[in-house]
Amino acid sequence: MMGDARPIGVFDSGVGGLTVLRALNARLPGESTLYLGDTARVPYGTKSPAVVTRYSLKNAAFLVDRDIKLLVVACNTATAAALPALEQGLAIPVIGVVAPGARAAAAAAPPSGRVAVVGTPATIKSGAYTHALRALRPDVEVVGRACPLFVPLAEEGWTDGEVPRLVAERYLGDLRGRVDALVLGCTHYPLLKDAISGVLGPGTRLVDSAEATAAEVAERLQSAGLLAPAGAVPHHGFNVTDVPDRFVEVGARFLGRGLPGAEQVDISFA
Amino acid sequence: MMGDARPIGVFDSGVGGLTVLRALNARLPGESTLYLGDTARVPYGTKSPAVVTRYSLKNAAFLVDRDIKLLVVACNTATAAALPALEQGLAIPVIGVVAPGARAAAAAAPPSGRVAVVGTPATIKSGAYTHALRALRPDVEVVGRACPLFVPLAEEGWTDGEVPRLVAERYLGDLRGRVDALVLGCTHYPLLKDAISGVLGPGTRLVDSAEATAAEVAERLQSAGLLAPAGAVPHHGFNVTDVPDRFVEVGARFLGRGLPGAEQVDISFA
Repeated sequence: MMGDARPIGVFDSGVGGLTVLRALNARLPGESTLYLGDTARVPYGTKSPAVVTRYSLKNAAFLVDRDIKLLVVACNTATAAALPALEQGLAIPVIGVVAPGARAAAAAAPPSGRVAVVGTPATIKSGAYTHALRALRPDVEVVGRACPLFVPLAEEGWTDGEVPRLVAERYLGDLRGRVDALVLGCTHYPLLKDAISGVLGPGTRLVDSAEATAAEVAERLQSAGLLAPAGAVPHHGFNVTDVPDRFVEVGARFLGRGLPGAEQVDISFA
Repeated sequence: MMGDARPIGVFDSGVGGLTVLRALNARLPGESTLYLGDTARVPYGTKSPAVVTRYSLKNAAFLVDRDIKLLVVACNTATAAALPALEQGLAIPVIGVVAPGARAAAAAAPPSGRVAVVGTPATIKSGAYTHALRALRPDVEVVGRACPLFVPLAEEGWTDGEVPRLVAERYLGDLRGRVDALVLGCTHYPLLKDAISGVLGPGTRLVDSAEATAAEVAERLQSAGLLAPAGAVPHHGFNVTDVPDRFVEVGARFLGRGLPGAEQVDISFA
């Protein structure tokens, strides 16, 4: 087996998926990645499943054209709305963030425990996490909560101080001391971990699906014989559908390191 | 003269333009209107001029196909980015919100006064208000300030209480007592008037371009002989590019009355 040097494709509506890419790069340092942020149509979280599915199929087609070996849907809203359509339409493996996140939450919850899921209005409305969690752990009680202001707060970089604390209090204050685990069901939310933990208190464990997703990608590549050959020099490409300025600026906070630059591509009307 | 019963076309990226439609309906109660909210691609305020122009031309083409007699660009970002392209491409009159808003601000500012303009990152970056204001009143000092969180706050309905007050304080606190007038340079912002005034204090007059825009539309229809015939029964249509649920729910707050329902149309890939 020589391995497969083709990149892993990753898409999100914008910068949020960079938290998943970060975990992926840390877990699989020898793998090349190609990231696509659909910044011309961001955000997805307040849009309908039909529109999100249409955009997701376009994003996937773009990445598949660039010869990726596996697709990561690094956006909870897109996973919740479009994963079946993507799996059906593509010949390569497709991994979303919901199932790994649900498995991590299921592992974190005590018997007959309570789990909260926070996400965009679209993700919460889909019930995707609730279904996945209840299938794994029928004894667990699940409560979903849409927190639409968390995305703009994270993008604005207002991740600490009074404003995020008050916003988190307003969304989640009534859950304080009442849930064993909370799933960060949106790839933007890890940036607001401190504000969210501060409101919920030390008894609630925060679950981030980024690492669980990276672990699943590693397993899938391994079992399919698709890991990059030993000694391969990885390449990390970034594409966006609007001009890259804001993506590069805001994205560095999500990726945890400077972005090397991103190329604008036109897939909106392709 | 029999008048012209065709509707006035109005577009915005989403619900924000309903504040302009509201002023238009109040000022011209006999006129029919056709509103288009591009909810599949909202928001425009964080996107590039090229992308906003592309979307604006699609929106305008949709409305022109439905035989409107005049187009109102009820979105500051779209006006700032795309007004010249729209004027050049259409055979009917086109009215944006920036020039009327700038005229109202120019009238409100004392000699050698100071005017602040708040808007989306795209509107502020364009400098459209600053240019328009300086052309009218070279003696006036203009300061622009992007306030990206105001849009999600208004859409979430968090228009009073501690969160909007703190957000307004963080964006505008340093301007307290230092500006004579402030232009609400985004159609979402009138919903946050109280929070903004509370931070700036009673010495700052808030200027909303909706009424100034409605007055300009009235004038233009009158001078072109395009007013609706006396006794005409007006019709008000609403179209959106994503499913109408959220638009109808959130939009009622912006329009100040219940929305009669909205029809989804597909112009994204037309």
